[in-house]
Amino acid sequence: EQVLVRSPGEYDAAIEAAQPGDTILLADGEWRDFDLVVRGEGTGRAPLTVAAQTPGGVVLTGQSSLRLGGSHLVVSGLVFRNGYSPRGDVIAFRVDSEELAFDSRVTQTVIDGFSKPDRYESDYWVAIYGKRNRFDHNHLEGKTNKGVTLAVRLDSEDSRENGHRIDHNYFGPRQSLGSNGGETLRIGTSHYSMFDSKTVVENNVFDRTDGEVEIISSKSGGNTFRGNLFLRSRGNLTLRHGDGNLVERNIFLGHGKDYTGGIRVINRDQTVRDNYMEGLRGTGFSSALAVMNGVPNSPPNRYVEVENAQITGNSILDSARIGFGVGADEERSAAPSKTVFARNLMSASGSDAFLSAASDVSGIAFDGNVVLSGTVDPALAKIARGAAELERAKNGLLYPRDPAIDAAGAPRDLAPIGLEEVGVDWYPKPKDTSPFESSGRRVTIAPGVDALVAAVEVAQPGDVIELAPGRHVVERTIALDKAITIRGTGPDKPVILFSRPSLIELREGGDLQLIHLVIDGSLAPDSVGNSVIRTTIYPVQSNMQIEFERVEVRNLTVNKSFNVLTLGKSTFADRIAIRDSAFSDISGTIISVASETEDYGQYNVEYLDVADSSFENIGGPIADVYRGGRDESTFGPAVTLSNNTLRTVGRAATNGSEAALHLHGVQIARIEGNTVSQSAPLKIVHTVGTPATSVVDNSFDNTPVPVFEELIYQGAPRVEMSGNSLDGEPLQ
Amino acid sequence: EQVLVRSPGEYDAAIEAAQPGDTILLADGEWRDFDLVVRGEGTGRAPLTVAAQTPGGVVLTGQSSLRLGGSHLVVSGLVFRNGYSPRGDVIAFRVDSEELAFDSRVTQTVIDGFSKPDRYESDYWVAIYGKRNRFDHNHLEGKTNKGVTLAVRLDSEDSRENGHRIDHNYFGPRQSLGSNGGETLRIGTSHYSMFDSKTVVENNVFDRTDGEVEIISSKSGGNTFRGNLFLRSRGNLTLRHGDGNLVERNIFLGHGKDYTGGIRVINRDQTVRDNYMEGLRGTGFSSALAVMNGVPNSPPNRYVEVENAQITGNSILDSARIGFGVGADEERSAAPSKTVFARNLMSASGSDAFLSAASDVSGIAFDGNVVLSGTVDPALAKIARGAAELERAKNGLLYPRDPAIDAAGAPRDLAPIGLEEVGVDWYPKPKDTSPFESSGRRVTIAPGVDALVAAVEVAQPGDVIELAPGRHVVERTIALDKAITIRGTGPDKPVILFSRPSLIELREGGDLQLIHLVIDGSLAPDSVGNSVIRTTIYPVQSNMQIEFERVEVRNLTVNKSFNVLTLGKSTFADRIAIRDSAFSDISGTIISVASETEDYGQYNVEYLDVADSSFENIGGPIADVYRGGRDESTFGPAVTLSNNTLRTVGRAATNGSEAALHLHGVQIARIEGNTVSQSAPLKIVHTVGTPATSVVDNSFDNTPVPVFEELIYQGAPRVEMSGNSLDGEPLQ
Ligand SMILES: [Ca+2]
Ligand SMILES: [Ca+2]
Repeated sequence: EQVLVRSPGEYDAAIEAAQPGDTILLADGEWRDFDLVVRGEGTGRAPLTVAAQTPGGVVLTGQSSLRLGGSHLVVSGLVFRNGYSPRGDVIAFRVDSEELAFDSRVTQTVIDGFSKPDRYESDYWVAIYGKRNRFDHNHLEGKTNKGVTLAVRLDSEDSRENGHRIDHNYFGPRQSLGSNGGETLRIGTSHYSMFDSKTVVENNVFDRTDGEVEIISSKSGGNTFRGNLFLRSRGNLTLRHGDGNLVERNIFLGHGKDYTGGIRVINRDQTVRDNYMEGLRGTGFSSALAVMNGVPNSPPNRYVEVENAQITGNSILDSARIGFGVGADEERSAAPSKTVFARNLMSASGSDAFLSAASDVSGIAFDGNVVLSGTVDPALAKIARGAAELERAKNGLLYPRDPAIDAAGAPRDLAPIGLEEVGVDWYPKPKDTSPFESSGRRVTIAPGVDALVAAVEVAQPGDVIELAPGRHVVERTIALDKAITIRGTGPDKPVILFSRPSLIELREGGDLQLIHLVIDGSLAPDSVGNSVIRTTIYPVQSNMQIEFERVEVRNLTVNKSFNVLTLGKSTFADRIAIRDSAFSDISGTIISVASETEDYGQYNVEYLDVADSSFENIGGPIADVYRGGRDESTFGPAVTLSNNTLRTVGRAATNGSEAALHLHGVQIARIEGNTVSQSAPLKIVHTVGTPATSVVDNSFDNTPVPVFEELIYQGAPRVEMSGNSLDGEPLQ
Repeated sequence: EQVLVRSPGEYDAAIEAAQPGDTILLADGEWRDFDLVVRGEGTGRAPLTVAAQTPGGVVLTGQSSLRLGGSHLVVSGLVFRNGYSPRGDVIAFRVDSEELAFDSRVTQTVIDGFSKPDRYESDYWVAIYGKRNRFDHNHLEGKTNKGVTLAVRLDSEDSRENGHRIDHNYFGPRQSLGSNGGETLRIGTSHYSMFDSKTVVENNVFDRTDGEVEIISSKSGGNTFRGNLFLRSRGNLTLRHGDGNLVERNIFLGHGKDYTGGIRVINRDQTVRDNYMEGLRGTGFSSALAVMNGVPNSPPNRYVEVENAQITGNSILDSARIGFGVGADEERSAAPSKTVFARNLMSASGSDAFLSAASDVSGIAFDGNVVLSGTVDPALAKIARGAAELERAKNGLLYPRDPAIDAAGAPRDLAPIGLEEVGVDWYPKPKDTSPFESSGRRVTIAPGVDALVAAVEVAQPGDVIELAPGRHVVERTIALDKAITIRGTGPDKPVILFSRPSLIELREGGDLQLIHLVIDGSLAPDSVGNSVIRTTIYPVQSNMQIEFERVEVRNLTVNKSFNVLTLGKSTFADRIAIRDSAFSDISGTIISVASETEDYGQYNVEYLDVADSSFENIGGPIADVYRGGRDESTFGPAVTLSNNTLRTVGRAATNGSEAALHLHGVQIARIEGNTVSQSAPLKIVHTVGTPATSVVDNSFDNTPVPVFEELIYQGAPRVEMSGNSLDGEPLQ
């Protein structure tokens, strides 16, 4: 029987009455605040089906969710959009902890941006419980809040050795979370990692799933990861806990993007074979391949030693790092044992260490490997050097032209899954383009009062607003909720003056590019916490981009704490870039990205780049970047400061940091070619991880030497210092 | 001519065409996002009028504002509600800095809660520029954001010696801002304080205007404050800058409320006569009368010495403090001179110092004063003691029954202005009642899943939700946007369990009272930053009240930072009260009110009271209260901790404060009669002001002695310690 229902009430009655083989069709349209519970007993031949009248025609909005309980249930064709789940998950394969789903399936379903507004309030989008469930041909995109996108839970016996299948899904872009909890897929938890899950994850696409260091965190045994495609995704597939997993025939294409990784091996009896990796740039834990050291007699939540791993027949090409004994330290002292590394084909992307060994490798049998290029640790001399020309085969992957070495590397018959084979064909997969200047539209504004405010209000995302030379006075704070470029025209930069505490307030959706103009703070009122640009106090879910190019900012002196850019709590910028700009007579901080003070491992900016700019008479630091806590699930922040001139920076009595640049917990800092005079010192504090700080070719005059501190690491600060001068003398 | 207009477009055309004597009527109804500019030239006899069709019938909502420019303009009958100004002010007597208003009037207008959502984004509700303007019979209530409610600006010559009249207005409740910038009325700024304003402020009512320490800040010369009524208002009328002001026939009725003050005298040639004060409880700067010491040759922004003050014929009854030489310190070393203090009638409310002198009083001539009760500093022996029975006269004020001493004190003909004489008669003045149990409604909830969530959703403000004994499971976070009491019934407390990181999220309008129940965290997920109760990430404009009575909270141990109550940035509780409650096995902080970390003088709670409760096995402190910075414009926070038992509190490695109680910048702390064992120490850090900390009659066992620190004050920590014991021995 097939019934069409038009309201939650009608649906409840229909599902109550449904018999095996019945189909309930939800009428096309918006279902707002719909607490959809699919509960019943179908049979293998006659499942109980709940489907959209037209696939994609039913949109669940507001505070909606889907729960399944019973057996042989099928749900299909729904879209979750414009809202978020009020529960702990959007789709749960259980009604509550007593009533799980078995032999059930969710397919052809879309979850798009259905994220809790608070980016640090956690939920799962999909939580799979029970046994023999299938989640396939779904499209999950744009999770902005904390929590695993899809979790397989093993928290009761009914959910173990489950035989779930997760296949043909499109895991679309997930932005950098700036915190732990950004995994796309997790199977199990450390607490239940002694149990087998026996879940199959195959033929899925992971496209720009950049949430954190783990794309997939396998925390149970007996899982299979096969035929998946990882596209331009930061992080890797980690066999974090549990033994006897199989990782085969997956394809990782990094396209040279930062932090793209492959597979990280921990625990016993893991098989990693016939995978293909290309263009990966991750190192350390995020290497193309990381075989870790373990903790002797490890407790389940630490690192079980690698034993009996079979790593064979993989191609790892144009990549940055393959590591053995990764993570070796006093605690992680157990090197891999009884392990085979054979018939792998490898080539490096750069001149840094490519094949590296951080511990004894005598427990690894090397055989039939070929490394085509890159620096190899002497301990790995057993890995044979080779030379071969690679050519792209019809499947789009690289193979040796010379059949003589064809025995090494991934098999010829790999068939990367196509984007059209995953998800649904009625929902578009997102493109990857810059938000700026994307509309092709531009408007020109004459000097005057509040014309700029009005222009931004009516602008469309990607528009360019051109300012004619002259004075542009802004008497209302500009609320920016789209990507906008504001650019001066003519040889003389136009001047923007503003009479509120802020010129621009960044809201949800706001991206800002400022080019060739002057911002003058002399009309701003005396209000504590003034900032030319700041974030709204409303939630901001999407990561922002902020760029200054050929911008002059001056006369921010009406009080003692006037900043240029301030990001508040729970806001995150993917990138802040300043180049060819000039800042003068500013009482506060130029870039304040230091609002996550709770030491939960959260922070405000991924990349901060400041280049070819000048800073003169600045009260606070040019950047104050804070990432506290001991969590290691994130890549950033990364700060680059190159070829700038700092003169009288950071010396205001109100500058609590007492620094010209203040970095706390930054993972990568490059300070290069800057000229610093009559300023407070640079201060760089390292917390967790393996921070990479280099201070190279800078000149310091009348300025204290940089201050480095290690908060956790025992030993001298881990900093590369070279080519610097102090008052004209080489600085040691 | 009279024209009725129905849209902004019609209005613009009408005002453009208007002639002296014309009236433009705005049609009754909602005018959303209306940028109302009243611009034109009337004459003394024929003003140009813009009025509501019906007084109160025109409601400006959304992002609306009113600006006047020209002369002889009248605006009347408008209501601003449900929105906020996008500019720096809601009503401005100027269009821009070039175009001011003269001889103009705004009357019969209401601004109710028309506050910017960000409580720390500043604006004025009314800014008066120009000359000879009148602001009268208006009703201003509920400003929640920073910034003076009504400011008279003197920032150009056209705005000085202005002769403005501000009369018959109702300044309704303004909640505690928890920061500087909460003044109700300010005339001038220190920058222009050498100029006379000559503004008259008379016959206004200030009802619960509790924003900060200054209700009125007079920062210019030649003003008159006459016949105003200050009702239950914290703070005082301060003659902060400028000379030659007159303060007469005002009435201050404190009703015994904390921090209620009268008049603070600074500068030269001030006259304070014939005022009546009763029931005031302020001390220090907020005394019923504070005559301050000055700075010799003071710069304009510091404290000009008191010279030639005439303070005569005032009644100051049932009040806490009258101070001479207030604020005397190394900098403020100049005592009042050439000053007369005569014919004042005084009586004390308590046994503390009533008449106090902090510096030499030889420059003050005392004559004909009578003090009926209270402690008098020996330096003030010239003030005659008297005895008199007081009786309430027909005007409601107290006068001596004995005509013999009738020469002292306020005149008999004072006539307190009635509430019905100020503001408008078509808009109600708000009552002063508890938000809890105000509706008289109650519903009873049986044990089960999510019944409580549903009950709160449909409840009305002031409802009581009664929980029957048993287990109440909550699977969705309760979003609380009204005042609700949740109370257990029956002898056995009902148990609430919750499966989200928080049980309750406090939103705008949320007040919470929990009585006779158990909250158990054992179902909560492991999510960093769990808190049983926390504030939303959306803006919260209204101050909250949170009360626990006979509540048990237990098993918050799923991770290392599980709090009971956490107030986030830009949220403020008027009061958090805990009594007869028990807390056990909690990994985090009981009350975390420490989110304003920017050291701008902001904080999260006014009163925190914890009494007759027990705390056992608590990882963090029982309270973490933070108020940073050096601002002195606020009264709080005030913390009372009495008769509690603490056992194993604050000793978790993750407790950054390393304290069992952590108070930073608290103004008043009373720690009395507590039993503390096997715990981390109490830590109290003093910043600005004159903090009053007492630690009395506590017993400490196996616990370090309390730690006190002064951040700014030079000298031993200012703490009263008495009656305490350590491991059974008296603690010195
Ligand atoms: Ca993680
Ligand atoms: Ca103030």
